[in-house]
Amino acid sequence: MTTLRSQASDEDQIRALIDNRVEAVHDKDLARIMSDYATDVLMFDVVNPLLYAGPDAVRDRVEARFSSYDGPIGYEVRDLEVATSGDLAYCTFLYRVSGTLTVGAAVKMWVRATACFRRFDGAWKITHDHESVPFNPESGAASLDLTP
Amino acid sequence: MTTLRSQASDEDQIRALIDNRVEAVHDKDLARIMSDYATDVLMFDVVNPLLYAGPDAVRDRVEARFSSYDGPIGYEVRDLEVATSGDLAYCTFLYRVSGTLTVGAAVKMWVRATACFRRFDGAWKITHDHESVPFNPESGAASLDLTP
Repeated sequence: MTTLRSQASDEDQIRALIDNRVEAVHDKDLARIMSDYATDVLMFDVVNPLLYAGPDAVRDRVEARFSSYDGPIGYEVRDLEVATSGDLAYCTFLYRVSGTLTVGAAVKMWVRATACFRRFDGAWKITHDHESVPFNPESGAASLDLTP
Repeated sequence: MTTLRSQASDEDQIRALIDNRVEAVHDKDLARIMSDYATDVLMFDVVNPLLYAGPDAVRDRVEARFSSYDGPIGYEVRDLEVATSGDLAYCTFLYRVSGTLTVGAAVKMWVRATACFRRFDGAWKITHDHESVPFNPESGAASLDLTP
């Protein structure tokens, strides 16, 4: 069956996936966040190691991140830009993650995010996730205090 | 005019753009590397600041990177994966940049890269470039010695 798909509608669906992520991170809802990932997802995350390949690796990473926070995790998105064509989409945004780690330290940092999507059987799934902070080449330190 | 475009051909064109980048970086050919960027490019680079918006900002950044090296820059790509649909494409890869900085230090580090493309008037252009290294959350240091 062929259905009409407008660009606006595809973009709306991608934006809804990001909205879903914001709520899922805030609520530390592992099942909800994992439901958006494709079976061949590749993640480049903010922290080591270089990459996480496949949903099991991503789940372990997300679970570890969730459990490292005491209480909810703030996830404020800005400058979200979405591009779609055919069955492919990507979006870019900045997010500020905030909260208190179980070890006591407060986290409040801006992260750059790129998410890529493919439509499988009518449903958009995240096939690639790249999140990072830049580093200061003079000190070698990750830049955790930059603001947009 | 409608033309037939095979997925294979689109993927080949994206792979050729990455090949072009490898040579352009090695030769520090600023004009050659800039010719592949779209006019609305957004770059998240390995080092500060958070982002570079537009080709002028990207050019300044690439030029600064080129001039920070004494001699050619090694740029070894591995694990290149390409996805295309309609007029959108993205690819992921790891690259090892190597060389000697003008300040004397040797560079040899693996970087994660995501590049997103849109086809404008039949030509693929880079609309988004995200390159990063992860950091070690215990030390706060960028991880410059990881290997795939």
